[in-house]
Amino acid sequence: MMNLDQLLSSFDPVAGTIPGAVTVKRRLSELRGCFARADAYERELAKGDRLVYTVAAVEPGTEEGDLHYGIGCILPGRVGDEYFMTKGHLHLWRPAAEFYFGLTGEGVMLLEDEAGGESRLAPLRPHQAVYVPGHTAHRTVNTGQGPLTYLGVYPARAGHDYGGLGQRNFRCLVVERGGQPALIPRQSP
Amino acid sequence: MMNLDQLLSSFDPVAGTIPGAVTVKRRLSELRGCFARADAYERELAKGDRLVYTVAAVEPGTEEGDLHYGIGCILPGRVGDEYFMTKGHLHLWRPAAEFYFGLTGEGVMLLEDEAGGESRLAPLRPHQAVYVPGHTAHRTVNTGQGPLTYLGVYPARAGHDYGGLGQRNFRCLVVERGGQPALIPRQSP
Repeated sequence: MMNLDQLLSSFDPVAGTIPGAVTVKRRLSELRGCFARADAYERELAKGDRLVYTVAAVEPGTEEGDLHYGIGCILPGRVGDEYFMTKGHLHLWRPAAEFYFGLTGEGVMLLEDEAGGESRLAPLRPHQAVYVPGHTAHRTVNTGQGPLTYLGVYPARAGHDYGGLGQRNFRCLVVERGGQPALIPRQSP
Repeated sequence: MMNLDQLLSSFDPVAGTIPGAVTVKRRLSELRGCFARADAYERELAKGDRLVYTVAAVEPGTEEGDLHYGIGCILPGRVGDEYFMTKGHLHLWRPAAEFYFGLTGEGVMLLEDEAGGESRLAPLRPHQAVYVPGHTAHRTVNTGQGPLTYLGVYPARAGHDYGGLGQRNFRCLVVERGGQPALIPRQSP
């Protein structure tokens, strides 16, 4: 068996960190093209290259049957009427599902079926689970006033595919309408 | 894509329930043979067939790449110096790992390598994760004064194998020693 310290980790649900885990930080400048409102994006960026989100991942094993897991933390903020959000991804191994579990804050997940393009908006709140089936692009969105932190668990062989989404982005946007998140179609350029 | 209501579920971390999920309840009478102290077990059972633990599971899909998840709740209690605990299991599909995450209370997980018989005691507390690798029998133990609740996520094809453990049980016991959990070898009959 692995050593005990390889099997244990502590989540800080408020800071959105797992001490000792590999952590990726995404600043606004790295999210060019994610937000539909290009003018608003340039205006926000001109104010400063703010941190938008962090993801810390733990990969205890890489065999079939293994799981990887992590914590995400999205800071509160907006670009025009679009909330701060992750780049979003499909899994390289398309059948891989992902289990999300809200820890702090208020958010939603944008789910898009790869085959049909159908979009869904799922609430992500403390102690609520969102099950992302395979073959589904998913993006996490902070719709609240404070940080949104959440746990994610996925098969070790899932992998992350940002490429396809980088080309065409999600078909829908999550925007603020009267203080609430709303799902609207992305306008063609 | 599945309907949204099939993708969402709410955890009640205090009650240790997921409303709407299939829930298994285990009473003391169903745990005959799990506790090493047979006299203490009969004495406890004579006082009443107490509820020891519940497990609620959600199975959103059954394809390769899918995940199942659930919540466990172990009530506080002891049989002699042994804490209330689950039956424990191996996965039918042995390579399947399981991710555990503490929600409320104080507990430990007993991990036993199937091949070597090596045992480990892992703390399970709120916001702490325990990664159970494949090929590892695992049992959850409530060492605290109140209910222990926790989240578990595992590959859909993992399955549960109680059979082998029912025959020979775990090689070690988790007992109370000076107010703390201790791991001791099971005495031969």
